Amino acid sequence: MFDYLIGEGMEAVEETLEQVVSTDIETLQDASVHIITSGGKRIRPRLVLLSYLACGGKDLADVYDLAAAVEMVHTATLVHDDINDHSDFRRGKVAVHKKWGRTFALLAGDFLFTKVYELMAPYGNPYNVMMSQACVKLVEGETLQAHAAKTGEIDREIYKKIIARKTASLFEVSMIMGAARAGASDEVIESMREYGYNLGMAFQLVDDILDVIGDAEEMGKPVGLDVAQGRGVVVAEGVANGSGGYTNGAPAAVAQQLEDDDPVKKMMDRMRDSGALELAKMQAAEMGERARKSLKPLAESNIKDALDELVDMVVDRSK
Amino acid sequence: MFDYLIGEGMEAVEETLEQVVSTDIETLQDASVHIITSGGKRIRPRLVLLSYLACGGKDLADVYDLAAAVEMVHTATLVHDDINDHSDFRRGKVAVHKKWGRTFALLAGDFLFTKVYELMAPYGNPYNVMMSQACVKLVEGETLQAHAAKTGEIDREIYKKIIARKTASLFEVSMIMGAARAGASDEVIESMREYGYNLGMAFQLVDDILDVIGDAEEMGKPVGLDVAQGRGVVVAEGVANGSGGYTNGAPAAVAQQLEDDDPVKKMMDRMRDSGALELAKMQAAEMGERARKSLKPLAESNIKDALDELVDMVVDRSK
Repeated sequence: MFDYLIGEGMEAVEETLEQVVSTDIETLQDASVHIITSGGKRIRPRLVLLSYLACGGKDLADVYDLAAAVEMVHTATLVHDDINDHSDFRRGKVAVHKKWGRTFALLAGDFLFTKVYELMAPYGNPYNVMMSQACVKLVEGETLQAHAAKTGEIDREIYKKIIARKTASLFEVSMIMGAARAGASDEVIESMREYGYNLGMAFQLVDDILDVIGDAEEMGKPVGLDVAQGRGVVVAEGVANGSGGYTNGAPAAVAQQLEDDDPVKKMMDRMRDSGALELAKMQAAEMGERARKSLKPLAESNIKDALDELVDMVVDRSK
Repeated sequence: MFDYLIGEGMEAVEETLEQVVSTDIETLQDASVHIITSGGKRIRPRLVLLSYLACGGKDLADVYDLAAAVEMVHTATLVHDDINDHSDFRRGKVAVHKKWGRTFALLAGDFLFTKVYELMAPYGNPYNVMMSQACVKLVEGETLQAHAAKTGEIDREIYKKIIARKTASLFEVSMIMGAARAGASDEVIESMREYGYNLGMAFQLVDDILDVIGDAEEMGKPVGLDVAQGRGVVVAEGVANGSGGYTNGAPAAVAQQLEDDDPVKKMMDRMRDSGALELAKMQAAEMGERARKSLKPLAESNIKDALDELVDMVVDRSK
């Protein structure tokens, strides 16, 4: 029954995502469908559905559009991120800006952002306020990250701020909105928020680790791209707080100096050897445990089990 | 009293615009304040205030955030447009992407879009639905325009579709929201919508004409930029429906062929000489008259007069 519900729910979310981008402007529709149908883990909409059910929600269809909206935020940022990062592939498919050009990719990203707004509008408040705040944090986090990459100024505190805003904020709001929609108490909503925050932090830590040690083919996107842009170093530098074998110099500049000698590979090797990545993995596991503990107020159920299993999936994943 | 009200209202809108972009991420705040404080006609927020007052609204403060939101949509699109158009100046100041780089400009535009959402959220529905639909149309119109520039496929119908979506949609929704917030009848709201639509169409026609004949210094942005990118031709071609001396060939390609011989200047001269611009001016005046007629249901007042005068300001402006 549970699998059926979630399965059906996630299918409805997929349908919503594809339908909402329908427009007579072909390029917008094609580019939107291209990125939407290219897969992805769909972890954020799943959080909305699970949180809703875990908190006793009875009519799952009530949160389909909410779930689609959080995935749409994520999708819109991917399109714009890939422009900024010059990333040619995404989810194993060619990136939107690579296929349609930068101008149309920028507009397609804007289009997807407006669709978030369209999906959210009928929910009224406080949902629209919560969602807009999460979106603001997300853009702030990405800006902070771009700064860190540009200046090389990064420490543990900045790294934490970056991933809290660019990733954990959307995980958090997914859990909060699902719980609130189910009519959960403030106390339970707070627990769900904690779960979302910690899971999001763990998720991003693992993402950054995988950029260094992951398999490009399995991940469907290039590895080492963050390192090449001085961003991957953020994870080692940030987690290890400068004690992992890196000076506090500018990683982007270092990468540049090494350019003739496969700097990305070298840096990735150094990061692997330094122990910083091991430390990052431990921290991801620790955040995962914190997420797990936040589930305590929930009654035992297969939904609680699913949220529990999700922690393992996030921490132990290889793509 | 009226001038005082509008003056005070517009000042409140300015304050809101500056305050809402407050963030601890310096670049986002600096870039946002840069574009917000660089002037602009503020015609869209003024429409919200005037429509509200014209329809009998008593508490102007009720629509300050609405008014700020429509200006914020416009501002966000300017930042992204300037990236796509490689335009170095905006409102007499250096463009955001030129000062902070493309990455931060893209993020600043996204940030401003999220702030629209934040400003709108408290209004609930139907305002959020209306605004999201207008934003969707706007992005669609810009995408259509980018297509026309790229392929050179443009006729009167496509040109009308472009300016209706990219410009008139936001003028329309500004009038509708102001009227609805004042509790106007459906009939009056429809008249206000018509005013907004026609004024928006006239505004964009004049904007496109000014790109060809305007004075760069007075306008605070380069002239001929649209022509250079095959977009300005849209106005002559679109209005004249192919009879203005231009074939239906690709204007962008034509501009390219003439590259060694100051193609922009040549094309601008051709457009000036062909009579197509005169026709465009006549059409702008005609749309202005239609806007004026939509004011009929309103009782005589200085607010009605102000809306009437706005038509002249839009049609006769030189910047």
